[in-house]
Amino acid sequence: MDKQVVETLKKNRDQYLKQMIEFLSIPSISSDSTRKADVRKAAEWLAEDLQKGGLENVQILETEGHPVVYADYLKAAGKPTVLCYGHYDVQPVDPIDKWNTDPFKPVIKDDIIFGRGTSDDKGQVFMLAKMAEAILEAKGELPVNIKFCFEGEEEIGSAHLDAFVDAHLDLLKADVLLVSDTTMLSMDQPAVSYALRGLCGLEVRLQGTKGDLHSGVYGGAVQNTLHAMVELLSTLHDTKGHVTVDGFYDQVKPLTDEERKTCEELSNDEALKKELDVDTLYGEEGYSTVARIWSRPTLELNGVFGGFQGEGLKTVIPSTATAKITCRLVPDQDPAIIGALLKKHLRAHLPAGVKLDVELMDHAEPFSMPVDHPALKAAHNALEEAFNTKAILSRQGGSVPIVNTFHDKLGLAPILMGFGLDSENFHAPNEHFHLRNFDRGMLALTAFLFDLPEQMK
Amino acid sequence: MDKQVVETLKKNRDQYLKQMIEFLSIPSISSDSTRKADVRKAAEWLAEDLQKGGLENVQILETEGHPVVYADYLKAAGKPTVLCYGHYDVQPVDPIDKWNTDPFKPVIKDDIIFGRGTSDDKGQVFMLAKMAEAILEAKGELPVNIKFCFEGEEEIGSAHLDAFVDAHLDLLKADVLLVSDTTMLSMDQPAVSYALRGLCGLEVRLQGTKGDLHSGVYGGAVQNTLHAMVELLSTLHDTKGHVTVDGFYDQVKPLTDEERKTCEELSNDEALKKELDVDTLYGEEGYSTVARIWSRPTLELNGVFGGFQGEGLKTVIPSTATAKITCRLVPDQDPAIIGALLKKHLRAHLPAGVKLDVELMDHAEPFSMPVDHPALKAAHNALEEAFNTKAILSRQGGSVPIVNTFHDKLGLAPILMGFGLDSENFHAPNEHFHLRNFDRGMLALTAFLFDLPEQMK
Repeated sequence: MDKQVVETLKKNRDQYLKQMIEFLSIPSISSDSTRKADVRKAAEWLAEDLQKGGLENVQILETEGHPVVYADYLKAAGKPTVLCYGHYDVQPVDPIDKWNTDPFKPVIKDDIIFGRGTSDDKGQVFMLAKMAEAILEAKGELPVNIKFCFEGEEEIGSAHLDAFVDAHLDLLKADVLLVSDTTMLSMDQPAVSYALRGLCGLEVRLQGTKGDLHSGVYGGAVQNTLHAMVELLSTLHDTKGHVTVDGFYDQVKPLTDEERKTCEELSNDEALKKELDVDTLYGEEGYSTVARIWSRPTLELNGVFGGFQGEGLKTVIPSTATAKITCRLVPDQDPAIIGALLKKHLRAHLPAGVKLDVELMDHAEPFSMPVDHPALKAAHNALEEAFNTKAILSRQGGSVPIVNTFHDKLGLAPILMGFGLDSENFHAPNEHFHLRNFDRGMLALTAFLFDLPEQMK
Repeated sequence: MDKQVVETLKKNRDQYLKQMIEFLSIPSISSDSTRKADVRKAAEWLAEDLQKGGLENVQILETEGHPVVYADYLKAAGKPTVLCYGHYDVQPVDPIDKWNTDPFKPVIKDDIIFGRGTSDDKGQVFMLAKMAEAILEAKGELPVNIKFCFEGEEEIGSAHLDAFVDAHLDLLKADVLLVSDTTMLSMDQPAVSYALRGLCGLEVRLQGTKGDLHSGVYGGAVQNTLHAMVELLSTLHDTKGHVTVDGFYDQVKPLTDEERKTCEELSNDEALKKELDVDTLYGEEGYSTVARIWSRPTLELNGVFGGFQGEGLKTVIPSTATAKITCRLVPDQDPAIIGALLKKHLRAHLPAGVKLDVELMDHAEPFSMPVDHPALKAAHNALEEAFNTKAILSRQGGSVPIVNTFHDKLGLAPILMGFGLDSENFHAPNEHFHLRNFDRGMLALTAFLFDLPEQMK
């Protein structure tokens, strides 16, 4: 770890936190059209801060929605270029009455900062900006070339990011993508991810009789659409938690022995049961809990509904029923192929007396990179150094759609170095961020920049 | 058929219809507390009409809700006493914009009268009152003793009828119960029912993790409550439409060969498929459609819901799911026993990882009377005479809860002589009633009264 940078970070900590509170106080809620000016204000604050910090070529670049803040520092000739991604927009604050403090008046208590965006993602965006500023202050130069791309629409689905990247391919060209918008495995367990699950979503609609019927007058004569739905959905899994759709697992890359071992070691079933208040965990037989989350595809019912939902009973035979399904996919599953297999299965297992309508909806490719990628190695080293403990190679159960955008359009391998925790209430009231991980994160980020040129030689 | 009565009905038809329109114009919506005065006004109109028609002992009897209109004529010494039941309250009229005419300004078009309550049940209550009036006018006496009990709360579950009957056991004592609040099999097919299905309803709630989870972060680790619900509900039927709950059919009385034959003859599957716009009917293997509706118990899902129901997808693992179930029961099934069997089945088939909560809700005993009951014979004869075609003995797929009230408390066998049609939009916009069945119904009702003493000798 570079001593001068460590000293600079220590010396400037109070000032950084003051600035972070200023940044977090701007209510940059991207989904709220009445906050449009505030979203821009946050972009302007960030641009000005990058400018003051010594970054060059600082720009607020327009999109059809909220703008992108860009800055760079490209003076490390022959060294790798790191493109840093984050987002400066935040989630709405409802339900506001569940907050203990004003979401846009951040407060620090017991080394935890409370406020909207502390963890997701303004706090982490701020870290990326300050990392560069601190190194420039301490050393007068950066060990790598750096580019920042901070968007303002992540919380509304990054609607214009694809087009933005397409329009700025040269500007964004880099060797490594550094994303600080993820969480750590746990407070003291650093990890670097090399794979993400993808997604294939669909809506299944069944139509029976042309209208709802009285169960006394017609009960027994016609297919009940809810019976048909239950029967159809029950064919999707066997009793061992496997998905029974023909070909569903055909493209799934098997776990290596080491991956399997890591997953077993990281599975803390007792803790998870306690956290979720259940007597037992459940999933595909033959895999540990972490293996099931990281490396196995799932087929989940996200919503099922039909018929009467009010209080008491209503003796109706419902004529329609709907199910919302998403599959989490793993390398090398193809969402289009999985969608087609699902459609085929549903058609083949359709009970008598109902019509089927399947609509394929959202999808995202799963992602993975070679575990021996040099940037992964640099991240691994940096995390071990900053957290002073063994770092692990992990996967993620969820998707990070922007990773696919940058990978597909710019060929960039992502380093997912985020310092939030799942327990920090992002998207919920009382969002917070542990300053202990702010400190260790700043060390890890700077260590990563210093080690990267060596690893990528 | 008594010629003088037939002449009187013919002579008075226009006057009767004018009076019926007056009665139907009173918006006696029992569920609407702002219509309380209108409900009473309808009771008063009815009481006054019975008084004018020559009935005696006319009273408006209070309950804790809307009142009961009572009247009698008890001068046929040694002859049977017929207690006539109907209700003068009506359903709400929403959605009002779907009505082609004002629901409370009845109009007659092509021999059909349109308006709220025309078919259910003010039109039929009016027929019972006029039947007595016409016979008294024509003959100066009635062939039987008669009592009227018209309630004002049928559309809100007859909330106070049990207590009312308990409080007036002597007043309501009779030999036969005549109910005009049901529908005919079809326009030209008279039938008299000897059995009704009962009901056993329950709500099933499953609870998995303590809150909804992100399907990326946790998908594969825990039971999805909707998966558990689908799996649990799919155990309730086999692939042949039989209910698989242990003991479910143990008390079911098998059909006689004649009943089976009647059901087969009455099953018009092609017409029903067309009516309901389905390619195929569906139900328990081995029984005709009518046999399934009339004489076989069913287990129907009336509502199932859990998770996300909005537009698009939400990658959530739902923590709760609910199912609403009602069973239609046949003689001699006991709702309490069936409820207990269902609970046992659900507990025994509960998937891992969820907690089960079952609440038994509504229930009604199935009902049946001997097919050789003399009052049934009188009804049968009367229908054949009035409709000039063969009448049939039928069952009903639904329940008529007040039948159990009168049977259990007064020991009365019900004659369900109703003249509505299922297609007449009761409970819906544009309710109507065919005056052809008003005319034939009036003949049938009077013929029943004249034949009853002979049959019950």
